[in-house]
Amino acid sequence: GDGVNPVQPVRHEQVVFCSDERSGLYAIIAIYSTALGPGLGGTRFYPYESEQAALADVLNLSRAMAYKNALAGLDHGGGKAVIIGDPSTDKSEALLRAYGRFVQSLGGRYYTACDVGTYSEDMDVVARECSYVTGRTPAHGGAGDSSILTAFGVFQGMRAAADHMYGTSSLSGRRVGVEGVGKVGRRLVDHLIADDAEVVVCDVDERAVEWVRQRHPAVEVVPDAATLAASDIDVYAPCALGGALDDETVPRLKAKIICGGANNQLAHPGVEKQLAERGVLYAPDYVVNSGGVIQVADEIGGFDMERARARAAMIFDTTRRIFRSAEEEGVPPAVAADRLAERRMSEIGRLRGIWLRR
Amino acid sequence: GDGVNPVQPVRHEQVVFCSDERSGLYAIIAIYSTALGPGLGGTRFYPYESEQAALADVLNLSRAMAYKNALAGLDHGGGKAVIIGDPSTDKSEALLRAYGRFVQSLGGRYYTACDVGTYSEDMDVVARECSYVTGRTPAHGGAGDSSILTAFGVFQGMRAAADHMYGTSSLSGRRVGVEGVGKVGRRLVDHLIADDAEVVVCDVDERAVEWVRQRHPAVEVVPDAATLAASDIDVYAPCALGGALDDETVPRLKAKIICGGANNQLAHPGVEKQLAERGVLYAPDYVVNSGGVIQVADEIGGFDMERARARAAMIFDTTRRIFRSAEEEGVPPAVAADRLAERRMSEIGRLRGIWLRR
Repeated sequence: GDGVNPVQPVRHEQVVFCSDERSGLYAIIAIYSTALGPGLGGTRFYPYESEQAALADVLNLSRAMAYKNALAGLDHGGGKAVIIGDPSTDKSEALLRAYGRFVQSLGGRYYTACDVGTYSEDMDVVARECSYVTGRTPAHGGAGDSSILTAFGVFQGMRAAADHMYGTSSLSGRRVGVEGVGKVGRRLVDHLIADDAEVVVCDVDERAVEWVRQRHPAVEVVPDAATLAASDIDVYAPCALGGALDDETVPRLKAKIICGGANNQLAHPGVEKQLAERGVLYAPDYVVNSGGVIQVADEIGGFDMERARARAAMIFDTTRRIFRSAEEEGVPPAVAADRLAERRMSEIGRLRGIWLRR
Repeated sequence: GDGVNPVQPVRHEQVVFCSDERSGLYAIIAIYSTALGPGLGGTRFYPYESEQAALADVLNLSRAMAYKNALAGLDHGGGKAVIIGDPSTDKSEALLRAYGRFVQSLGGRYYTACDVGTYSEDMDVVARECSYVTGRTPAHGGAGDSSILTAFGVFQGMRAAADHMYGTSSLSGRRVGVEGVGKVGRRLVDHLIADDAEVVVCDVDERAVEWVRQRHPAVEVVPDAATLAASDIDVYAPCALGGALDDETVPRLKAKIICGGANNQLAHPGVEKQLAERGVLYAPDYVVNSGGVIQVADEIGGFDMERARARAAMIFDTTRRIFRSAEEEGVPPAVAADRLAERRMSEIGRLRGIWLRR
């Protein structure tokens, strides 16, 4: 659970099964809603054990994208795609281009991008058959590495949390634990150091830790995530795998703020309540990590990094607004975020009822 | 079974689930293959007991349309759609137009038309949201009642069977039993009478029988389908429900030719062999009843009845060709038809490999 209720009383607007026997393509594209505009979300290339597992994943992911895109202020609905297969053996030019033709067949109702198992270079190939592709390489007009604005957005969310808790958005002097210093985490460390925070990190990959230590000698290192979570920090930033906040971790947390780049930080529904009861301010993951989709969404009209950065900077205001309405409504921030997302989908979606000549 | 093997080793190219909660729309559009061009097939509006039942139906129907369209000589692949619901209570302008938006969303890869539970007037409504609709009313540029060319095509198939069996395509003096004198059967009777055939009919609807008797006093009437099938006729023309040729009927048949307008005349796979072993010449249903789809397909470029009729007249040649290749290959005509359809899909489909500037 990333704060979005996993129960699905509402059907997805459109779910498209695509098959091309010769290239081995079997893909499912799910569009949760186009109330705010065409669906936008990445293509996951993964060796699912069954078609049912792939379908369940793409339904959940596309729904989560609807909420993420809504609170990112984008004119995009939620979409996502899965390609069933092992990317290391099944990915080919023919398969990616066959996939591109199916994305094209939806006439722009779904824009794709990178996700687990797909890379900007793959999107360049998909784009040879399809106009509705983002996350391409800069050489092909793409927005490039979307971890840049993901990290920037997480930092904005963290500033909003500090502002809400301490009355100042600066993280100067705060002790921040960053779990995972991959592409997003290491860039987050850059922002934190520049803001004079004290930074503690951990990562299963020693080279990633070494990279950070070389760049910022003042950064402390702890051996693992459990140690980091239980250490004496003000802010905990999960930037690795999902499920960081579970029944074991939450009781041990010393941090009063949680704000990180990982997806699906809450291991199960209910964790958001445990956090709230312990007085921990949780910045909903899908709100603060939306800088990446903001970056690739900007590519659609021709990428402009300054425009994209300005939009990602608005994550500060959005996160603050969520904390405030959570207080006003007496609900955890994850619930407040879902409500705000649903309100935007409903309020903006209905505006098409006002007829305009196209 | 309509001659198309119900086992499905090949996946459908695209299967699209469409939902609009407010209007109550839940539809599945299936495109079996676009090797020959955009999918074409009707929309069935039916209160399926489950989504699984609806899916199974639309997969079978769209596959059957691929074979039918291929042998009709159309530049269309197989497509079909089902709307889950009771047309008498669930059909509304909002639902039909929501459905039209989803057909439109496929950008012309699927053309829809009437089927069980939908009528030309419904297609006019769908067309208000969608450019890819055939089977509209003549007032809206539609091809009108497609039973005209369905009956004409069945008559051409019957002439081909006579030519193959008797060496003359005329049905003059032959005794033809028409089971079902609804929209297609009664028009078939017109063609038969004009060709000096002796006609025997039956129908569960007394008014339909009366209509034919008024128009053609020489037509004989028998009380039911079982009587008709066992009577002393040369040609048996099933024009009512599917499954007319089952394990009970086949041994009783006196007719040496079977050629009618009904869909799915063979109650199960294997009946085509029983017929062949008894020396009965079976004109595959989906070949001879393709005049209807030929008629609505013509509507796409602006309907012209003479052009459509000329194409439907080619059912004579196609049916003869099927009988001949059945003999040459030592297989029942239903099998020969499937092979010819598959060959056309493969041979014509690959021609797009020859690049042309569009």
